[in-house]
Amino acid sequence: MNPCNTSSYPALYTDLYELTMAEGYYFSGKYGQDAVFDYFFRRNPYEGGYTVFCGLSGLLEQLENFRFPPESLEYLLSKGFRKEFLDYLSGFRFTGNVWSVEEGEIVFPNEMILRVEGNILETQLIETLVLNILNFESLIATKASRIRRVAGDRMVMDFGLRRAQGMAGLQASRAAYIGGVDSTSNVLAGYLYGIPVSGTQAHSWVQSFDSELEAFREYARVHPNRAVLLVDTYDTLASGIPNALTVAAEMKKDGKKLAGIRLDSGDLAYLSRKAREMLDGEGFPDVKIFASNQLDEYTIQSLNQQEAPIDGFGVGTKLITGKESAALDGVYKLSYRNGAPWMKISENLEKVTLPGIKKLVRCFDEEGRMTADALTLELEGEVEEIFHPVQIGKHCRITQYEQKCLLHPFMQNGKRAKKFPPIEQIRDAVRIKLGKLPAEHQRFENPHIYRVGISGELMKLRDELVKKLNSTRKIH
Amino acid sequence: MNPCNTSSYPALYTDLYELTMAEGYYFSGKYGQDAVFDYFFRRNPYEGGYTVFCGLSGLLEQLENFRFPPESLEYLLSKGFRKEFLDYLSGFRFTGNVWSVEEGEIVFPNEMILRVEGNILETQLIETLVLNILNFESLIATKASRIRRVAGDRMVMDFGLRRAQGMAGLQASRAAYIGGVDSTSNVLAGYLYGIPVSGTQAHSWVQSFDSELEAFREYARVHPNRAVLLVDTYDTLASGIPNALTVAAEMKKDGKKLAGIRLDSGDLAYLSRKAREMLDGEGFPDVKIFASNQLDEYTIQSLNQQEAPIDGFGVGTKLITGKESAALDGVYKLSYRNGAPWMKISENLEKVTLPGIKKLVRCFDEEGRMTADALTLELEGEVEEIFHPVQIGKHCRITQYEQKCLLHPFMQNGKRAKKFPPIEQIRDAVRIKLGKLPAEHQRFENPHIYRVGISGELMKLRDELVKKLNSTRKIH
Repeated sequence: MNPCNTSSYPALYTDLYELTMAEGYYFSGKYGQDAVFDYFFRRNPYEGGYTVFCGLSGLLEQLENFRFPPESLEYLLSKGFRKEFLDYLSGFRFTGNVWSVEEGEIVFPNEMILRVEGNILETQLIETLVLNILNFESLIATKASRIRRVAGDRMVMDFGLRRAQGMAGLQASRAAYIGGVDSTSNVLAGYLYGIPVSGTQAHSWVQSFDSELEAFREYARVHPNRAVLLVDTYDTLASGIPNALTVAAEMKKDGKKLAGIRLDSGDLAYLSRKAREMLDGEGFPDVKIFASNQLDEYTIQSLNQQEAPIDGFGVGTKLITGKESAALDGVYKLSYRNGAPWMKISENLEKVTLPGIKKLVRCFDEEGRMTADALTLELEGEVEEIFHPVQIGKHCRITQYEQKCLLHPFMQNGKRAKKFPPIEQIRDAVRIKLGKLPAEHQRFENPHIYRVGISGELMKLRDELVKKLNSTRKIH
Repeated sequence: MNPCNTSSYPALYTDLYELTMAEGYYFSGKYGQDAVFDYFFRRNPYEGGYTVFCGLSGLLEQLENFRFPPESLEYLLSKGFRKEFLDYLSGFRFTGNVWSVEEGEIVFPNEMILRVEGNILETQLIETLVLNILNFESLIATKASRIRRVAGDRMVMDFGLRRAQGMAGLQASRAAYIGGVDSTSNVLAGYLYGIPVSGTQAHSWVQSFDSELEAFREYARVHPNRAVLLVDTYDTLASGIPNALTVAAEMKKDGKKLAGIRLDSGDLAYLSRKAREMLDGEGFPDVKIFASNQLDEYTIQSLNQQEAPIDGFGVGTKLITGKESAALDGVYKLSYRNGAPWMKISENLEKVTLPGIKKLVRCFDEEGRMTADALTLELEGEVEEIFHPVQIGKHCRITQYEQKCLLHPFMQNGKRAKKFPPIEQIRDAVRIKLGKLPAEHQRFENPHIYRVGISGELMKLRDELVKKLNSTRKIH
């Protein structure tokens, strides 16, 4: 259940041209023709070496609710759509199949990670929804996994809601959790998705009292079991930490424990070291130090290099908006239509798409490490050799140790064909799967490019189709 | 009506710490104390010279629906909140006042643009919602206004939904329209907000037919009054435009008119010039040329410099995510509490806030151009001199020609106090207001900084309060 999505009108949360094309298919009499679309992206976000796939459960939920309520049809009538077509839409349901990698799967550029089968009208009509949801949630889950990587075992908290792109904050908090964040400040995400929530006090709490000490005392009195005191409202070292120590001592007398302090400004490496000394010096080695303020994987990496004694990180804007990338460039391309493989040819080889109904195979070595992915035709067996999809003649043998098909049938004839695992399990899967991806693909600077190739059979199909299309079409 | 926002649970769409602080205020017995919070931001997005304020109507709608339904209270109970406090929340309503500049107003860093008055608990509790909505919608409206500026009278279409940050696409399309875009591809935004919608066909339409010509013909047959043909699926100059010309000629024979063609790849300056020549040469000077593909204010500016004959622009990712900035850094700060002005003092002068209940005054010169803004105390009269808020001693006299108070009471005692103008009117207001902002503040590179100062009285209040706070608080 998700009251915050577009569920009242998922079918309208689309680009107008999906509807004008659907009307076109309808009146050209070809809307019953079968079609297959592939979802893939061309570049990893953040100039990274991998992407965490996320958003599938939200997408399938929307597809199940994909309807055109009467008031929406009246609206479309006013926009010039024809009555006969709208009558058709009034009973519209998505009745196709969705094959996809699991949510939380590690994926790479130019490999099909989701495949939609159905008639040309319905498969086209859902394009915008597919792209909108998968592009965004994968963007955020990937960012979160990068931050998790540098944070190691320490706590990472999503504090981004106030800087999230409006309503996107809900999906973003879910995706961030799946990607590896430990908790969110977003209460609604906690309520709807069962994500742990965290958060304690703002500067305004401290300022609402006549003195910082009074503010700390009062907070500890009301929340004795989860008090994290924000120590930088006035002066971190001269006032904030000394006052926190006073309260920690008072709590100790009452048999309670101060949970932690939070630094939200200044030089976090310097201040955290000073804070640790002061806390330890007064006999509070258990009081944790949390830090926030424009953090991301790079600032945390830098704090690591400086051995800053920080126990947990509050991460905001850069996580929740996927700032440097802002969007994943996922696309949705026709690969099969009217009974035959199809593709987009282009002068730019990199924009050529791969024809036919395909599967995605992942190869592992003897230690269980991922070594390469291969796109093959659906009916092919194990792959022995893969070809570079663009650089002609470049090919290599691939390991035979283990191969897994990554696409599973998640929706059949418009109905969910698979139960979703609980969110914790998706999150664990990300961690486990990343554990199998060699570190050189995970580093931030110039990551080693993970091999994604195509089978010989697929290459043959593609090359024949290119020839055929070029010969029958009016191109000089 | 907006079924796509968080309206079922606006009160849960918040950071947890707003609730833990509210509980703190409740049990410390000070929740009835009065408080005033100011909303402002510190930097214009995109390194620009101004910001278009947007999001007010969505915010007020959410504040009117700010409730804690029973199931949400059960959830909070499970998270450790106390029964007595939750009983209080069960009847909670926001009963405060909201003063704000109009939606569509042109605003600047460090000036209060929205003021919330009420008790400390309720004014604190709505913080996240205020920031989430206003930060995002203002970010997008500002981006749209920059694109509008370079597009001049030509059509600008929002095509961003597929790359929008999930559900944020709805708010983004509304904000983009207010900021100056002419239409959106987002059907739901069209339906809910009455924004014009536009969009025609994708590459997949063209590919779903055996030939490009057949695809164009069929589209023109089904949509004779709004056919814009996408000409770059195979080869723009060798195939796309010639086929479009064939269809244009066929339509002409039937007394119809091809509306336009769209270029979505390649060198748009070169291709648009070639396309214009070809269209004109065959007697179709009225067929419009639209362009899309990673456009923003800079690429359009470059196309302008090359005099590319483009009649309309489809703008996607960079508009709908506000890419370079990703977030506006708006904050919400306590300025008055328990009957007296209050402020945040900090070692960093730029982070010092301004105390007291203030108003925002805008000064105009004799030609109606904006010259400076001034923050003054609420009961002050006209301002004659303003002071730089940070650089001590820097001050200047300001024009007396016309001064306007920009804050209006939009909500009183929790009820909407003002009807919202229709969206078209907000959009027109942006255009008119930007017409009064001198061009040097609107240019993209190193824009001239618009003057925002404080009155002498406000400065006096601030300086006295700093002295007092420093003397009474334990700061060395």
